[in-house]
Amino acid sequence: MPSSPSAPGVQVKRELAAGVMERIETLGSISEEPGRLTRTFCSPAMRRANDCVAGWMQEAGMETREDAIGNLFGRYPGTAPKEKTLLLGSHLDTVRDAGRFDGPLGVLVAITCVRHLRQTGTRLPFAVEVAGFSDEEGVRYQTTYLGSKVLAGQFRKEDLQLKDASGVTMAEAIRQFGGKPDGIAAARRDPSRLLGYVEVHIEQGPVLEQKGLGVGVVTAIAGQTRARVTFLGQAGHAGTTPMDLRHDALCAAAEFVLEAERLAKARPGLVATVGQIEARPGASNVIPGEARLSLDVRHALNETRDRAIADLEAFVRQRALERKLGLEWVLVQSTGAVSCDQHLSDLLAESVGRCQGAVARLPSGAGHDAAVLSAIAPVAMLFVRCKGGLSHHPDEVASLEDTAMAISVLSDFISSLARSH
Amino acid sequence: MPSSPSAPGVQVKRELAAGVMERIETLGSISEEPGRLTRTFCSPAMRRANDCVAGWMQEAGMETREDAIGNLFGRYPGTAPKEKTLLLGSHLDTVRDAGRFDGPLGVLVAITCVRHLRQTGTRLPFAVEVAGFSDEEGVRYQTTYLGSKVLAGQFRKEDLQLKDASGVTMAEAIRQFGGKPDGIAAARRDPSRLLGYVEVHIEQGPVLEQKGLGVGVVTAIAGQTRARVTFLGQAGHAGTTPMDLRHDALCAAAEFVLEAERLAKARPGLVATVGQIEARPGASNVIPGEARLSLDVRHALNETRDRAIADLEAFVRQRALERKLGLEWVLVQSTGAVSCDQHLSDLLAESVGRCQGAVARLPSGAGHDAAVLSAIAPVAMLFVRCKGGLSHHPDEVASLEDTAMAISVLSDFISSLARSH
Repeated sequence: MPSSPSAPGVQVKRELAAGVMERIETLGSISEEPGRLTRTFCSPAMRRANDCVAGWMQEAGMETREDAIGNLFGRYPGTAPKEKTLLLGSHLDTVRDAGRFDGPLGVLVAITCVRHLRQTGTRLPFAVEVAGFSDEEGVRYQTTYLGSKVLAGQFRKEDLQLKDASGVTMAEAIRQFGGKPDGIAAARRDPSRLLGYVEVHIEQGPVLEQKGLGVGVVTAIAGQTRARVTFLGQAGHAGTTPMDLRHDALCAAAEFVLEAERLAKARPGLVATVGQIEARPGASNVIPGEARLSLDVRHALNETRDRAIADLEAFVRQRALERKLGLEWVLVQSTGAVSCDQHLSDLLAESVGRCQGAVARLPSGAGHDAAVLSAIAPVAMLFVRCKGGLSHHPDEVASLEDTAMAISVLSDFISSLARSH
Repeated sequence: MPSSPSAPGVQVKRELAAGVMERIETLGSISEEPGRLTRTFCSPAMRRANDCVAGWMQEAGMETREDAIGNLFGRYPGTAPKEKTLLLGSHLDTVRDAGRFDGPLGVLVAITCVRHLRQTGTRLPFAVEVAGFSDEEGVRYQTTYLGSKVLAGQFRKEDLQLKDASGVTMAEAIRQFGGKPDGIAAARRDPSRLLGYVEVHIEQGPVLEQKGLGVGVVTAIAGQTRARVTFLGQAGHAGTTPMDLRHDALCAAAEFVLEAERLAKARPGLVATVGQIEARPGASNVIPGEARLSLDVRHALNETRDRAIADLEAFVRQRALERKLGLEWVLVQSTGAVSCDQHLSDLLAESVGRCQGAVARLPSGAGHDAAVLSAIAPVAMLFVRCKGGLSHHPDEVASLEDTAMAISVLSDFISSLARSH
């Protein structure tokens, strides 16, 4: 099947991807810390990043503006009188000591697609807006998705009083940045005006690399449940307490670690992780009287995640009973899964099929702005292969070829959406 | 079978035990720290403890002296011209925030038995010496058994230069105490003059309590091997890394914890303990890329302990291979087991049979002065039941009844040894 007429050709798309890579480097050098990339909400580094990206948006033919919380938007108007808006984009803030692709890749690929539309004189029956969200990672105020939550009307006004590590309130930070704390409620977007939100993002995992594919369509953004498990046994002398008289809390903890692994392996798409473990008192010659663990369970379907959590809780209760141990099981957090929109995702998958051939569909284990925006618009996501699955790390990288593929797919998708409009 | 004529009667032995309990309280109040019991090598508290115990020895009819490293001895001479010596006793130093029975119980029971000999006008064909060793716990210089090592000729002269936390060298501490660093080599005891060493000690474990017995005969003092195990995997995002692409170091560590437990349960007398565990980086949403564990394995037979260590090492190598993990296996320490003397232990067991009825024989998982003295004399040990198995803790306690039983057994043993001499 021939690619859409407005999608760029092979040589052109390599040049466009090279432009994206260059801009990734430029943005990667805009940091609030010397020697490593850290760009947090409403920081001076974010000011420079927004100004820089706004310039690229304007150069691509877009009108730019910032909203009350510092989200940057570039708008490429359509041809219809009461046109709706297709929202593209991702976030421009980063974690500490970040990689350069997490966030900016999606913003820059979207700008590049719009620039190609303008360069080819293509006008659409809807507006295309590219968003650069001001906070997705939540580093400065320990509260994620500040940017997209404003659009979705989910921003909690009381968060304006939160203070960062230097004692600066969020309201103050927003004002210093040039935003308007009082205008946040009004910055909510009208769902009836949105065609959808489509986000390109680096995968941050190893699945596409494993499959040998440059891009893939996200099916859902996994829900996450976090729990804290504590086994209470009896500390004792490692030399003088026979095995059959022990109440070793760490042995029960070890059974739990392996059961979480076994159960997740047995259920497709489920991931379960024990990332923290502590044995107390923690001396080599003392039987652990207490063992504490963290549990993180995720799946694209809430039912599957909920059942896994219930099964794991039943398992620890059973083990504690059999080993005559005390048990504390605390649910720390539970966030529901978000399914991507079927229609938009199918259109995106058709574009992947035209551009790449093989179509991979995969869930996202990490959270994204798309999960928040699903409250006000149909959402779809395109993942780009991530070298070694490595993310939140300076060595995070997507290749030139895969970036070119993402540009092709997003361009094709926009054309296809225009045809079906 | 009637008890030996020189052994005290039921009422008498309760009174003797009450005397021991009173002295346990007195010694328990002699501490270098306010509000808790801590009495370390050559401290002013040890000076007061030695002086106090020397008074009790003299009152029991013994000549007292201190050797070059501050060990206290009371001698009750025998009747033979070139008599040998039966050495009894234990240590007078303590751990920090110690119990009152660990060490002093053995010294005080021995003194009480000698006093009973004198009070009943009993003279023996050998001398009885009661030792109060100046250092068994090794708290001040992190080097255990200083007292008994001097008798065994195992004291390392270079240790005299070790400094405590305040910078005081061991030589200086010994001199301040009244000892003679230059006289340590000469303080070695001549093995040909020793009939044996018999130590009464609180069990520090739950076995006698479990069996419902007041005292038991120690078969051997377990050897101990300590190892440090590190699995090296691949850290990764807990949400985006599918189960089949993980190299989770903690899962291998959990398998090791359970294998150590399984193997020790399957081999009589073996104990294996993982007391320390660490997962790195140690965040709830990051797959552990590294896991570190401690291993402590003990058994009364060296072959059994060595085979267990070899089997556990083979297990971790196999697991690391199958899980494609790196592995570090480091042997930190290995101390051989010491068997108690068959003849002395049989005599002691006969005394237990006469006084208590049931005879329990059990290994000691913890180290004792008897292990060191086995180099120069046949050794035997009598364990006294320990409430809840709790030791190295202020709540450590042996009952009046069990202390009375220990006095009866040791008195009976001395008489029995005299008859068989």
